[in-house]
Amino acid sequence: MSSQTVEFFFDFGSPASYLAWTQLPAICSAAGATLVYRPMLLGGVFQATGNASPITVPAKGKYMLTDLARFAQRYGVPMRFNPHFPINTLALMRAAVGLQLHDPARFDTYVTAVFRAMWVDGRNMADPAVVAEVLARAGLDPQAVLALTGEAAVKDALKSSTEEAVRRGAFGAPTMFVGAQMFFGQDRLDFVREALGPTAQP
Amino acid sequence: MSSQTVEFFFDFGSPASYLAWTQLPAICSAAGATLVYRPMLLGGVFQATGNASPITVPAKGKYMLTDLARFAQRYGVPMRFNPHFPINTLALMRAAVGLQLHDPARFDTYVTAVFRAMWVDGRNMADPAVVAEVLARAGLDPQAVLALTGEAAVKDALKSSTEEAVRRGAFGAPTMFVGAQMFFGQDRLDFVREALGPTAQP
Repeated sequence: MSSQTVEFFFDFGSPASYLAWTQLPAICSAAGATLVYRPMLLGGVFQATGNASPITVPAKGKYMLTDLARFAQRYGVPMRFNPHFPINTLALMRAAVGLQLHDPARFDTYVTAVFRAMWVDGRNMADPAVVAEVLARAGLDPQAVLALTGEAAVKDALKSSTEEAVRRGAFGAPTMFVGAQMFFGQDRLDFVREALGPTAQP
Repeated sequence: MSSQTVEFFFDFGSPASYLAWTQLPAICSAAGATLVYRPMLLGGVFQATGNASPITVPAKGKYMLTDLARFAQRYGVPMRFNPHFPINTLALMRAAVGLQLHDPARFDTYVTAVFRAMWVDGRNMADPAVVAEVLARAGLDPQAVLALTGEAAVKDALKSSTEEAVRRGAFGAPTMFVGAQMFFGQDRLDFVREALGPTAQP
């Protein structure tokens, strides 16, 4: 077994983060590596680095839709560009951090529910009523989850993680680290795989 | 034999264009497709689309160096980031168009000499004396080549090709078209290969 980790800095608002998330568990599993979820606030990363979403350049935004669809097809995963994009994900990311800190057993269920609502079902996850419905359907307690987002420790942890990502060189999402090596984008997963080395044998 | 073409919109100033150029002839050859060189002025594309070089975001520019080096290693091709980057490529791109129009037999020699000077040898190709030396070493007549850059028809052709790229959706370099399908970036060459279909059998 390898003791390697893949740190996955992500934001639910990023469609490329969704695509990476559909692939990373299998990549890590095949390499015997541990996938470490690092929620961050992409808006904070953009603000700190001066970067911006590709959609701020119309031609780039248009191509991005085609490009993401091509990768979804390659991966064989469902994907629908969210009609409410861009969505403010502050509460969603805080809740992710809150669950990591206070209820880690429910973290995977939460991440799955939110990524699917955003990038498969096209839900308006900026609307607290929609979020509550999505969480309830996933078997989570919406009130308990949303209560986490108000905690100072949770807010601070998301802020710290975002600042850490920027300090380590991130400028967008998803950003993966294998040790000191940084990889930006779901289109660099093959390099992540290579960085983990040959597939672990049982 | 396929009658497909890959249109390769490029600018010598773009390191990703260089990397794509090292791979495209073999990709096209394997698929029995024709590689069609489409010189364009990346600065014109940026101006028309509102896009900008990745280096305008320092964290992105820094990562880009690592990312390009990783691809160069994967491809097994030499690459050195040009210390004089960014370089104004207007005259270089005009000369490329001029050779296509007036001396196509020398086009490949010219492209090879300029790409290598830019991205292997790190020459300052904004300096006409350096350009002349590079061309002479490649067996070209610098005066004859540079004379082409003053022609109105050549200037117009480069302008048209840049405008065409933008009209068809390009926002950066390299941009490849296989029919109506657009692919941006040297990191999408595998999709270009797929778009060309199964490898042609002799």
